[in-house]
Formats: sequence, structure tokens, C-alpha cells
Amino acid sequence: MAAVVGLALPDIVSAATLAAGPKKISLDKNDVILFQGDSITEWGRTIGDTNINTYNSLGSSYPFATASSLLAQYPAKNLKFYNRGISGNKVPQLADRWDADCLALKPNVLSILVGVNDHWHKLNGQYAGTIDDYRNGYKALLERTKQALPNVKLVIGEPFAFTGIKYVNQSWYPKFNEFRLVAREMADSFHATFIPYQSIFDDALKLAPAVYWSIDGVHPTVAGAGLMARSWLEIVKG
Amino acid sequence: MAAVVGLALPDIVSAATLAAGPKKISLDKNDVILFQGDSITEWGRTIGDTNINTYNSLGSSYPFATASSLLAQYPAKNLKFYNRGISGNKVPQLADRWDADCLALKPNVLSILVGVNDHWHKLNGQYAGTIDDYRNGYKALLERTKQALPNVKLVIGEPFAFTGIKYVNQSWYPKFNEFRLVAREMADSFHATFIPYQSIFDDALKLAPAVYWSIDGVHPTVAGAGLMARSWLEIVKG
Repeated sequence: MAAVVGLALPDIVSAATLAAGPKKISLDKNDVILFQGDSITEWGRTIGDTNINTYNSLGSSYPFATASSLLAQYPAKNLKFYNRGISGNKVPQLADRWDADCLALKPNVLSILVGVNDHWHKLNGQYAGTIDDYRNGYKALLERTKQALPNVKLVIGEPFAFTGIKYVNQSWYPKFNEFRLVAREMADSFHATFIPYQSIFDDALKLAPAVYWSIDGVHPTVAGAGLMARSWLEIVKG
Repeated sequence: MAAVVGLALPDIVSAATLAAGPKKISLDKNDVILFQGDSITEWGRTIGDTNINTYNSLGSSYPFATASSLLAQYPAKNLKFYNRGISGNKVPQLADRWDADCLALKPNVLSILVGVNDHWHKLNGQYAGTIDDYRNGYKALLERTKQALPNVKLVIGEPFAFTGIKYVNQSWYPKFNEFRLVAREMADSFHATFIPYQSIFDDALKLAPAVYWSIDGVHPTVAGAGLMARSWLEIVKG
């Protein structure tokens, strides 16, 4: 903790991203970037809106903040952003809709954030899946993706939670940490760029309390969404 | 134009902001930042939501992109962001609601973008005000602001439009340019930081067509909102 005290947030983001491995992704002309996941990703988008790069199709959280920044920075690249996050989704729901909501869009860059519901819905009795189901299902999803889109650049986000706010308490642990590790394992196995959101937020908690970063333990505030976008932007090579 | 061809967007933003004067604003601990203006600013917010720093109160355009970035970058500063833009507003409507929607919020940083409706609504016959009404009304609004909040840091945005898309055609010119000049004049008179949005977008048009930056000639796309946020962030001193 001592090492972090003197640091400002941009340093924390760089440090955590670097610690996760220096793998950066480059954005090429005409790249299609797809954000996939659950409600953290869906946030504010109009489901069924198939447009690229619009307010309604991107929603109002980290996918919007990331897309608006990159669209402004690289106008000559003709980037196309999609958001296909859906509230409540776990790995099995992503698998069910993967043909239409991922493969058919032919992304060059695929950013996935999934896992918090795979744990949470088990805890609250809505789901019977285990950590092995998460690992095996995630692995199958990524194998299927690599088969259909061999050149896709993968970005895998670490599932994260904030203990002590609304939905998240000590009963989440230590099991929730296994989901974080499996996401990291997936990134390593599939040569994906890993974004260590939990590590980044853990460092951020030294600068402002949990309610500054999260609404309810699971969903980020505007500040939290901004930190996720900064972390995502940090992995992009100019 | 030759000078711009080799530049990427960040250079354009820096160059235009520098050309407008090197005045930067610093954000201090507990600063209250207020975005004021018309529909370009209102965009997606819930009118009547008086919260600070929330998705609904900030909307989903440049105020959100700016706030989310700064809240993530400066968590220890305890910044408070408000958006009070209202669709269709001209200077007289801002004046009517200024006590409640500006002075009572006691902003330390006040960002105003107003002027496109003062011209547009005259053109389409909904308003009889002239350029002198814009100048005199804007001046009175700023004098009133400085009297109530002598230490407020002012940010004045240049009104902008994109010719050839939907609402904007040649009939807008050359008159519209006078509104841009008056906004600049206000910034100079009141020692405000000026954001030359039209100049920045004019340079951006050399890298991507108008439809990339604007939905309808008046309102920015996600890319346009991203460029506005980048321009706003460029004036903030760390």
C-alpha cells in the first residue's frame, strides 16, 4: 500500500495495466470493436438498436466513454463500435446469443466482461453453476470465437466487486476471487489483453471510498465508469 | 490547410486551444463544476434530477464524458458536477432561470455554451432577437454571475454548426459567424477560458466528413461529443 500513496490515478492505471502484462492492442483502419458482457456493459443502451457509434446503441457507461474518446482521437480510422451487453448475463447466456451478438458482427476487437453474475446468481439461489462451469463455459466460448474469428484481438476484463455496499458482503468471499483468477487464466490461455479492473479499483479505493466508485457493489458510478474507460484506453496503442 | 494535414486530432485540439489563448483552469478540492447551455449540453439528462455526478443528472454527451474522465482522474478532489442545459435555450432563457440553475449552485467552474438557438430560432421565425440582443444579454448574464460569484472560473464555448446537414444550410451565413465572434468577445471581456469548438470542428472536418461529427448540423455525434470533451479536458490544468 505504501507504494501507492504518492500516486495519482493515471499512475495507478498504468501500473496495474503494466503489472497485468504489457500487451497492448492497436486499432487499425475500419476496425469493428465489440463490447460484450452484462448490465455493467449494457448500461443505458437501447436493446435491439443495431446502429454503430450512436448514443442509444452504446449506452452511457464505459463503452460510451471509451468509444467517444477513440472516435474523437482517430477519425481517419473509421472505427465502428458495438455494445451488446445484456443485464443479468452469465457465460451461458453469452453462449446462447454468441452467433448473432458476436460472430455475425465480425469484430476485430472483442472486449468481454463477464463473471459477476456467474457468482452472484449462485449466491442468491437463481443459478446452480459452479466455478468449473464458469471456466469451462468461458473456455468453450473463446475457442468458438477463435475458430470463427482467428485474428480477433481479445480484451478480457477482470470481474470486480466492492464489499460493503448494497449487494456485496463478506459472503461473496473468498469464492469470488476464484472468478477473477479464472478470467486472468482465460486471458493468458487465449493471448488476450487482460484489464485488471479489480486491482485497479482496489488501488482507487485508497484515494476515495467505495461509494465514490460503485453504486451498489456491482455497478460503477460515473467515476467508476470513467476509471474503466481510462483503463481500457490505456491498453490501446496509438 | 497544409499545416493541418499531417496532424492527428490531439494536435488539432492542442493547437486550436493554444491559438485561443493559453489560459487554463485548475480544479481545486471540492470544486463545483456546472455545465450550462441548450440541448447540446442537456442531451440525455433527466430534467429535475438534482443529484451530482450521476448518470441521469449528467446525461450522455460531452458533460458526461468530461465529468467521468475528471472524476476518475482526481478522486481525491471530491469534484461535484452539475448539468443544467435545457433544449432550445437562448440567452434570455438562461437569464430567466439563472438564479436557480446557476447562482444557487455556487459553481467554482461555470461552463457555458449558448448561441446556436439565438441564431437558428431567428432564422426559422420563432424568435425576434438580434446579434445585439445576444451580445447585451450575454454580457448582462456574465456581469450578474461575476457579481454573485466573483471568484468563479468561467469557460465559454464557441457556438458551432455544420453546413450541409439537415438543419444547417448557407442561409445561416455569414450571420452565424457573428455569434461565434461575440462569444469570443465575451470570453475576452470576462477573462474566461475560451473553447473554440467551431475552429476545432473545422480542423476535424479535414479528417472525417460532417456526418461523422454531427447528427443534424447542430448536435454532435458520439464522436463529436468525444471531441468536445477532449477539448474541455485540454483546458484543465492537472
